[in-house]
This record gives sequence, structure tokens and C-alpha cells, in this order.
Amino acid sequence: MPDPIAARVTPSDMANAIRALAMDAVEAAKSGHPGLPMGAADVATTLFAKFLKYDAADPAWPDRDRFVFSAGHGSMLLYSLLFLTGVKPVTLDELKRFRQLDSLTPGHPENFVTPGVETTTGPLGQGLATAVGMAIAERMLAAEFGDEIVDHRTYVLASDGDLMEGISHEAIGLAGHLRLNKLTVLWDDNGISIDGPLSLSDTTDQLKRFEACGWRAMRVDGHDPAAIARALRKAQASDRPTLIACKTVIGFGAPKKAGTSKAHGEPLGPEELAGAKAALGWTHAPFEIPDEILKAWRRVGKRGRNERKAWEERVAALAPDRRAELERRLKGDLPTGFADAIAGLKGRLAAEPATVATRKASEMALEAITAVTPELVLGSADLTPSNNTKTKGLTAISPGQYAGRYIHYGIREHGMAAAMNGIVLHGGLRPAGATFMVFTDYARPSMRLSALMGAPVVYVMTHDSIGLGEDGPTHQPVEHLAALRSMPNMRVFRPADAIETAEAWQLALERRDGPTTLSLTRQNLAPARRDGGAENRSAQGAYELSPADGEAAATIFASGSEVEIALAAQAQLKERGVPARVVSVPSLDLFLAQDESVRRAVVGTAPVRVAVEAAVRFGWDAVIGDEGSFVGMASFGASAPYKDLYRHFGITAEAVTEAVLRRHNRRG
Amino acid sequence: MPDPIAARVTPSDMANAIRALAMDAVEAAKSGHPGLPMGAADVATTLFAKFLKYDAADPAWPDRDRFVFSAGHGSMLLYSLLFLTGVKPVTLDELKRFRQLDSLTPGHPENFVTPGVETTTGPLGQGLATAVGMAIAERMLAAEFGDEIVDHRTYVLASDGDLMEGISHEAIGLAGHLRLNKLTVLWDDNGISIDGPLSLSDTTDQLKRFEACGWRAMRVDGHDPAAIARALRKAQASDRPTLIACKTVIGFGAPKKAGTSKAHGEPLGPEELAGAKAALGWTHAPFEIPDEILKAWRRVGKRGRNERKAWEERVAALAPDRRAELERRLKGDLPTGFADAIAGLKGRLAAEPATVATRKASEMALEAITAVTPELVLGSADLTPSNNTKTKGLTAISPGQYAGRYIHYGIREHGMAAAMNGIVLHGGLRPAGATFMVFTDYARPSMRLSALMGAPVVYVMTHDSIGLGEDGPTHQPVEHLAALRSMPNMRVFRPADAIETAEAWQLALERRDGPTTLSLTRQNLAPARRDGGAENRSAQGAYELSPADGEAAATIFASGSEVEIALAAQAQLKERGVPARVVSVPSLDLFLAQDESVRRAVVGTAPVRVAVEAAVRFGWDAVIGDEGSFVGMASFGASAPYKDLYRHFGITAEAVTEAVLRRHNRRG
Repeated sequence: MPDPIAARVTPSDMANAIRALAMDAVEAAKSGHPGLPMGAADVATTLFAKFLKYDAADPAWPDRDRFVFSAGHGSMLLYSLLFLTGVKPVTLDELKRFRQLDSLTPGHPENFVTPGVETTTGPLGQGLATAVGMAIAERMLAAEFGDEIVDHRTYVLASDGDLMEGISHEAIGLAGHLRLNKLTVLWDDNGISIDGPLSLSDTTDQLKRFEACGWRAMRVDGHDPAAIARALRKAQASDRPTLIACKTVIGFGAPKKAGTSKAHGEPLGPEELAGAKAALGWTHAPFEIPDEILKAWRRVGKRGRNERKAWEERVAALAPDRRAELERRLKGDLPTGFADAIAGLKGRLAAEPATVATRKASEMALEAITAVTPELVLGSADLTPSNNTKTKGLTAISPGQYAGRYIHYGIREHGMAAAMNGIVLHGGLRPAGATFMVFTDYARPSMRLSALMGAPVVYVMTHDSIGLGEDGPTHQPVEHLAALRSMPNMRVFRPADAIETAEAWQLALERRDGPTTLSLTRQNLAPARRDGGAENRSAQGAYELSPADGEAAATIFASGSEVEIALAAQAQLKERGVPARVVSVPSLDLFLAQDESVRRAVVGTAPVRVAVEAAVRFGWDAVIGDEGSFVGMASFGASAPYKDLYRHFGITAEAVTEAVLRRHNRRG
Repeated sequence: MPDPIAARVTPSDMANAIRALAMDAVEAAKSGHPGLPMGAADVATTLFAKFLKYDAADPAWPDRDRFVFSAGHGSMLLYSLLFLTGVKPVTLDELKRFRQLDSLTPGHPENFVTPGVETTTGPLGQGLATAVGMAIAERMLAAEFGDEIVDHRTYVLASDGDLMEGISHEAIGLAGHLRLNKLTVLWDDNGISIDGPLSLSDTTDQLKRFEACGWRAMRVDGHDPAAIARALRKAQASDRPTLIACKTVIGFGAPKKAGTSKAHGEPLGPEELAGAKAALGWTHAPFEIPDEILKAWRRVGKRGRNERKAWEERVAALAPDRRAELERRLKGDLPTGFADAIAGLKGRLAAEPATVATRKASEMALEAITAVTPELVLGSADLTPSNNTKTKGLTAISPGQYAGRYIHYGIREHGMAAAMNGIVLHGGLRPAGATFMVFTDYARPSMRLSALMGAPVVYVMTHDSIGLGEDGPTHQPVEHLAALRSMPNMRVFRPADAIETAEAWQLALERRDGPTTLSLTRQNLAPARRDGGAENRSAQGAYELSPADGEAAATIFASGSEVEIALAAQAQLKERGVPARVVSVPSLDLFLAQDESVRRAVVGTAPVRVAVEAAVRFGWDAVIGDEGSFVGMASFGASAPYKDLYRHFGITAEAVTEAVLRRHNRRG
């Protein structure tokens, strides 16, 4: 293959084009981060011009190499690359609209905004940890479909901050353990953070640290294209994931600000900008890229075209059923048997109602689901026996061996969540991972990215209340339902029994535009539902589970484990001549998102409204209204057998009955 | 000093007492974790019997060594030690009530339940990261009060899980950087996690990893007391923090379960328990400790008594003002000048109202506060120039140099929060640390522990809405106010101007029983208040800021940056002849916790209620009620100049006015 970089255009020229665009765009926006693009331009140029399997005409081509821009604040580097290589809608005009409303060039890269952006980055550490999931997905799919269909690398550009965040430890530990040798991290090792020299806060020997975690590690001059290329070739030959520390100067070229934190997060200012362009020998007007340099970059953008076409031919040559399966998987469609599997399960559960914990019901659902969905990849952050996610017949992947559908993520909740984002963004697989509900706090930054990106990850969160008992308040979620329900585009289900659990799994996997958290009990629950029809009654978030015997004087709302308390209160009230109806609320957030007419119909017109949930009240006022009562938690939990705790905290049928009667009698 | 262990009683006997108690208590509770206490008993015995500066008669003595039990699930190890050494209320009966309601022996150690427990642990990694804060506090106080008053070590017992969690990276990076050489981590290196052998998920070379982070590291046989003692002596002589990997057998002694995950988290069962006791040569009845072994342990409990008394004498000999200052600091009382400093600031702000961002107003408050509170230790997770926490005259601590009042925590939000827990638990200092509001997600597990433990940490969270502008949705909190308000015992203030900011700081520092989050803007805000009296009007969470001109037809509730929008809407409504009042809600959670009479008085009786906040609605229904309207965010944000975003998302005075009129006209 001829050198894509034309003779007259040097790698420096190409890198300087990035630098100039970044300076100009930040200056135009009066906001942004010029330092990283200027410092890392040589690294990125080398990677794109010589290594990355990439076709700007089809930046989402499935077997492309992934380039994850973890240091998202330096977004102008990425946008410059997309424009220069010729990704279609990313025009020069879009670069001029950097950080403006509705532009394709937001402050941090958003994969749902800009073609060619693999994942949303910005919160530090996330890109790196997401890339680990992409690299896992690549190997797992290669194990399933063969190396001739799936064979690409994952590159990460990471900053000091990415490596300082805790999630980086979980990510590199997992990647090193699994020997993901097609993963390469290019660390923009510029020694500067916002507070000043990195030495103010950190003195870690990163190479040694990565080696300790099972990586190959090396250091190069990040402004020496030949050295960078040598290192990248070594990385390609490595039997382990590779860290390449690229020693760079932040704000490279800026006469006064280069090498200082002043280059990091604000426009250079006209004088410094002019000085930088002069130092770089860049004589062109703002946003002007000379033809020959643009042509050189456009050739880079076409480097992968033949590889893409060859891949398309290999896919076309697959046996029809394999090809159909691959295409289904890449599109993210569920298999045709999915709805039937759920319906069959619900029928069996209706015929033989089971008193089980919903974590166990989830396992039952997964037994049915995994049989028909080869794309579903389960896992747990080292709570497999408690989360009930490893169903019969699932084998785990292990170092060097990626045929399997289970991942032992280790005690890495945050890393697991980010890896799942990477798996689902990669395409071809659907990840679901588990830990205790209380540890959603550990995973929350990555769960937020699932929601922001619309990534349909499933979070299987068991032990979802004081019902976990003796482990005590550090392990008992009380505010986590509220915290997750308040997150835009996060759907939370807290099913009341095995049938609702099956329905929640169905809705979680049918969902394509965002994540779902399943909040599941440790303790056994009596069946609330006896109907096993095909209708998914949880689909609006709430429904009348048990009508009143006569005109309802009260409505009792409940979710999950408290539905049986609501039903018991209904029975107590009936004995006292107070007809009450029970509304099951498997998803409060989904219910609150329904049209007002739906909400009004389900809430009903009974004069007394009481909600019961073993969690804080926060959020329930929207259902129970001004005069409503709430039976739940107003503090952290405690350590004791769970039945003692329910009594201690007053979450009982008697308390619900009393709350209804208090309101009822006041009105009567 | 004579060997505290009597000749007839061997270290093994003493360790076996721990093992027996742990097995018996877990068996009695039918729940718990016997494996770790059995495995780590020799390590703990060596530490307590030969090294720990500890007096069971006064386990909270200020200059004691800290023993942080990071592997909280093995709590019976700690409870056994407390009972055996003679910490008063921790009787054998309490051990028999392990994991029962209201016992002193909850499932995981809680410092607010059990004397002798330094910090609540259980969520993995937290103890280790909290201990780093304790070790920082020790050095900072020594720099201030001298080594003769403050000179103790911090020991951590950590498990595999503690070292796998991401927070461990932030903690050991910070400790290694700061060269906290009086910090020693004893790692219970048993090679087992819940899913099975640790090798299922991790292959990290921990010694190399710690060395890369600036630690000394060594490995010993965790069942060889002499080897453990040699390692501890080396740690005491080290110029760096030290990791001692103690190779142990989980469930040591159990004939079938030892060395397997079956020993981890459930009772051994009668047969295995009997087998273990036989293997250990332990012939005593359940919960029976032979006299001579108990006596040997009680002597260990008295090892530090003379050191404590000598310390008390040194304190008594201090100059009266130094002694008074030390005692004030250890009690956690604020200085007498504190209230005056706040009042003076408010007076100045009332006289010269400033249009400033509340992050800037926070800096102004800190200028006044730091001058009178030497205990206040500020810091930032590498956002110092944005968070405005480093006021004039504050110097930062640095490796080997601990005289200072500022900490560059690095890009370690989670580690910062945990370290602040450690600093405040240590006593003598009050920590306040900063990052962007959106990154509370990264710190949340430690913030939850602040709330659970009632630790008065101050979280200074700036850039608190879409008002941060161009950085876009990854950096714009929308659900974080709701997520934090829903956390029990977390207080959240979102002040509207400089005076409310001063009031929020006053309430945050006057608070002694829990943490406070200050939610502060990036953007400038017009002054909402012109009154600078001594009364803290924010103290009930909400108050009428601007009365209606006439009988109120509507009440507009707002917090922070949206108060100026509410006031503008009030003016617009007045023009249309609709009298509206504005209620400022600097702390929604504090307001909702007031008595109903207070709430009713502030909410008032105006028929229309509208709330405006640049965040999700979640939580506001409790104020605005069934018929209320909310103007705020229903999705994630976007990247653009902030004024464009307010318009784009419809958070404007016009929108509030319209919402009021819609309701008003419907009623009228």
C-alpha cells in the first residue's frame, strides 16, 4: 500500500491542521479546550494515517477499528479528524459552530449527535472503561462468528485524568485479566492537570502500574511520528493489552501557554493564538485548510475502504442463516422466539404460582430468555450466587477464551457498567450485569451514560431494600429507587412477583433506546398475579392489580415486595367495611411518563390515597397528591432479620390500614 | 515492657479465640461471614498484641492508633477484638446477639453503634480510602500541634475486594503521593472472592501496583506471627505507606470449606463448625473463652494505657490557650468568632450587593470563614480554579509537608469524599472539598457514608445546572439535586445569591450530625436579598423572599439560579394584575423535614403553586401539590452558551408567568 501521506505534505502539516482547527474553533466558541488537541495531534495523526481501520464514508461499518476518545474535553481533536477525513455531515461550518446549540460539535463528544463518535465521553475514565467493553465484545463475537467476520482493534486516547479516576483501575484490571491484546491505550502524558503540574497531586508510575495489571507498557515521544508508529506496531503484536505513554506538550506550539495548565481549558486568546500559528509555521486564515493537506487527510479517510468492501463480501458469502443471524444481531432486533418465550413462562407461572424472591424469578425468566437470545451476555460484579444471573448452561469467558455468555466482572461495579456500555455500543450483543441495588451508587456515572446515550443496558440489582436483612444499612438501599427514577431516560422496574418479573425482563430487552434497572428482592414474595396472558400489564408502569369490593374508598399504591403488604391491608380494610383497591406500580418513572389520561385512570378517584414502599417517599407525592399518605422509610435501615426490620420501621399491612383509616375517618 | 502474652497462652490460642467467637456468632445469627475472621485472626492478633497503640478503657482516646477494618463483612473479627480486649459495652451477650435488632454487633461495623469502631465499613474500598483521610489528618494536626500531641499510626485491614474497587486506586494514589508513611495496609490475601477463586476475575500483581503508586510493599505468611511482626516493624520504619500482603487461608481450620468461597458469607453449619474447632484444638463450649486466654487478651487491651496517660499529661502541660484550642478542635466546637464573621459578611453584602456566581459568593464566604476557623481544610478534585475553594493565604499540603489548609486531591472525587470522611472522623479538622455537581455521582458511595455516619463533611459542588453551558450534558447535572435530596441525612443547599450562600455555609459548618452539599452556580446571579441581619433565613429550608402585592393569587417556588427567574415572573404577573409571592427554597430537603405547621405557613394558601428549578421535577410535587406546575428539566441538557440553553429548555420568566396564568385562568 502506498503511503497515504503525499510526499509534499508532512505528518507535521497534517497534525498542524488539527491544531489550527482546534485553536480556531475554541477561539470562535470563546470556550473549550485547545491544549489537548494541540498536544496529541501527532499521536492522532499517526494512528489515523497508518493504523486505524477506518472508512470515513461509513464510519459505523461494523468491523472497523474503534477509536475511543476518552479525553472528551479535547473534542476538537476528534471533530477535526472527522472533518479532515471526510465524515459526511461534519463540515467546516459545523466546526465553526463548536459548542453551539444543535451543532454536530458539542462541548464533549456525544455518540448520539455526531457520526463517527464511538461513545459519549467527558466524565473522566468512562471512555477507557467503555473501550474495555468494546474489546470484550469484539472477542466474544469473533468466538461466535469467526475472525473473518469480526477482527478489529480498539484504540483509546486517554488523558492523565482518565488514569487517575478510580474506574481506570477497574477497567485496566479487567482488560489485563482477560488479556484483551487488541486493546491499545494511547496516554496523552502531558504532565498537566487543571490545578497545575500533575506533580501537585500524583506521582504514580503508570507504566509499572499497567504492567502490574497485566498490560504491556512503553513510553514514546508523543511528537515523534516514527516512534509512535513503532510503538503501535509493538502493540499490534502484543499478547496483552498495551499502554503507550506518549510524552507530549499540552498546547504544543503556543509560545507562552504550552506546557502549562493555561493551555487546558480556555481559548488561547488572539495574541497567543497568532504566536502559536507562527511557531507552527501555519500561515493560513482561520478555519482554512490548504488543499493539499485536506487531500492528504481525505486519502486517510479512504484507507479502510477496501477492507470494508472485502468484509462486506465475506459477509455476503456467509451461509444464509448465519448471515441473517449476524444482521439481526447487528441491527439489535430480538429473535422471533422472544415474545413466545416470555408468554410461555408467564403461562407456566400462572399455572403453578411460585413463592420466590424476585431475584429467583429473574433467574427463572433468564432460563427462558437465554434459550432464545444468544446475544444476551450476563454477568455479575462478584455476586453471582446472590444475583442469580448465571443460568444453567452459560459458560464464562476467561483469559484468552471468549466463547461464552457470562462475565465474572470481579468486584468492579463501575467497570462493569462502563464495560456494558461498550458491549452494547459495539453492537451484536446485549449485556445485563448484576450487583446489589445499593451498589448502583458505585456504578452511577456509567449508568448515567447509558441513559444519556440511550444504551439499552440491563442492570440487575438485587437485595433491593431493608428486606436484605442482617447486612445492615450499608447494604440496604433506601434512596436508590428515587435516585435512579430521577435520572432521565433510566427506566426502573421493581416487580412484585414472578410474573411481573417476567414482564419487566420483556420490557427491558424490548427497549432499544435506553437502560433499564431491575430492582429485585432477596426475600421470597407470594404471587401477586395469577394471570399469565400475553398482555404485558407492566407496560404502562402501573395498573389496578386488585379492584375494590364495591366503590373504592381508598387506593393503595405499592411496588415490589410491598405489594403483598398492600394486598393484606386491602383484606384488613375489607373486614372493616372499607373497600380499597390496590394498584401495583412496577415502574413509577414509566407511570409518571404516561399521558395524563392514563395516569388519571390508574390513580382513580377514590378519596384516600396511600402508597407503601420500603424506600424513601421522594417521588411518590406525584401519585398520592396533597392529601396522600406514605408508608415507607424515613431514614437509613438497620441490621436485623428482615421481618424484624419491617416491623421496626413500621412497614406493615397494619400501618397501611391505619394510614387509610386515618384519612378515611377524617373525611367521613 | 514484658511480653503481654502470658507464657501459657500462645498467639495461636489468642487467635483461635477470635475464630471460635466468629464461628459461634455467625452460627447463632444464622447469617454472617466466618471466613475472614478465621483467616485473618493471626494477623489481627499480632497487630493488637504487639503494635497497636490502643486502650480498651478509652477506645476513642485522641492519640490512639487507628485500626480501620475495611473488610467490614468480617465484622465478627472486630467485635471479637473489642470484647476480648475489654471495650466496655461490647459484652459476650452482645456477641451472641450478632446481627440482631439494636445489638452492638450489626452485620457490618457502624461507628455510630459500637464503641471502638473507627468508621462504618462494608461497601468495599471505603475503609481503605477513609483511612487515608485519617492519616492525612494525623500529619496535618501534628504539623499544627506538634508530634508530642499528635503522633499515631493508621492501620487498615483490607480484603481482595477493597483492592479491586476503583476507589482503592484513588486512595493509594493519594496516600503514595503524599508519602503517608504512618499508614499501613494489611491485606488479607486469601485469593477467594464470592464467585470463587479470585483468579476468575483478577490477576493483578498488587505488590507491584502499590509500589507503582509510591508504596512500600511486602508479602508474608499471614499465619506466621513472627513474620507478620517483622513486616510491621519494617512498615513502622518506612518512609512511604506500606502494604503488607498477608497470605491467608479463608476459613482457616474449617476441614472442608477452608480455602473456598463457601467459607465466605454463610454459617459453617454444625458439622463443619465442630470439625473446625477440632482442627484448631478448641475444646470449649460455644461462646466460652477460657480464663487465661481472656486474661491474656485483657492485658492486650491495657497495653496503651500508660501511653494514653502520658499523652494526657503532655496535653495538660500545654499552654492554656493551646490546650483550649486543642480541646475545642477535638470537641468539634466552632470558634466564638464564627457567627460574627458570617454576620459581618452578610452586612457587607447587604450594603454592597454583588452580582456574582454563587461559586464566587462561596469564595467570599470562605475568605471570611477561613480567617476564624483554623480547623477548616479545603480542597478540590483538580478543579481549584473553577470551584473557587482556594482562598487567599491558604497553602496546600504536599509530600512530606503537612502544614497547610488546602489539599490538591487530584482527579479523585471518590477518594476525596472518603478522605474527607476520614479527616472528620479523625477529629480536630473540618473538611470541605469541591468538584462539579455532576461528579457527585463519582463520589456518591462515600457521600452516603458521610450521611449514614453523621459525618459533617461539606461538599462544595459548583456548576450546578445547565447554567454551566458549553460543556454539555455530561457535565450538566439535572437529576443530582433530586438524587442527593433523597438521601437520608444529606442536607442540600442551593443558594440564590451571595447572602444565601453565606447562610448556607453557616448552616453547613454549624451542622454536627451530618454532611451538607452546597450546590453552586457557574454563572452570575443578581442579588435576591438585600437584608444582612443576623437571622439565618435559610435555616428552615424555605422562606417568603418577596411577598405578593395584595392577596397572593399564586406562589412561585424557586431555588438557586432560578430565584431571579421567579422574581422576574412575579414582576410580569404584577403587570398583568396577578399578585404572586416568591418563596426561595435554598434547601428543599430541609424544608420538607420541617413540622407541618412551618411547611403550611411557608407554602401559604395562594390557589396557584408553581415551582421553577433547572433540574428534574422529582421531589417538587410535595410542595406544589396535585394542581401544581413545574418549570424545569425533563431531559438531559445540551451543549451551548447557557442563556441559549435556558431559552431552549424553556426555563424562563415567561414560562413561569405562563404556567401561573394557565392555572390562574382555569380557576378564575
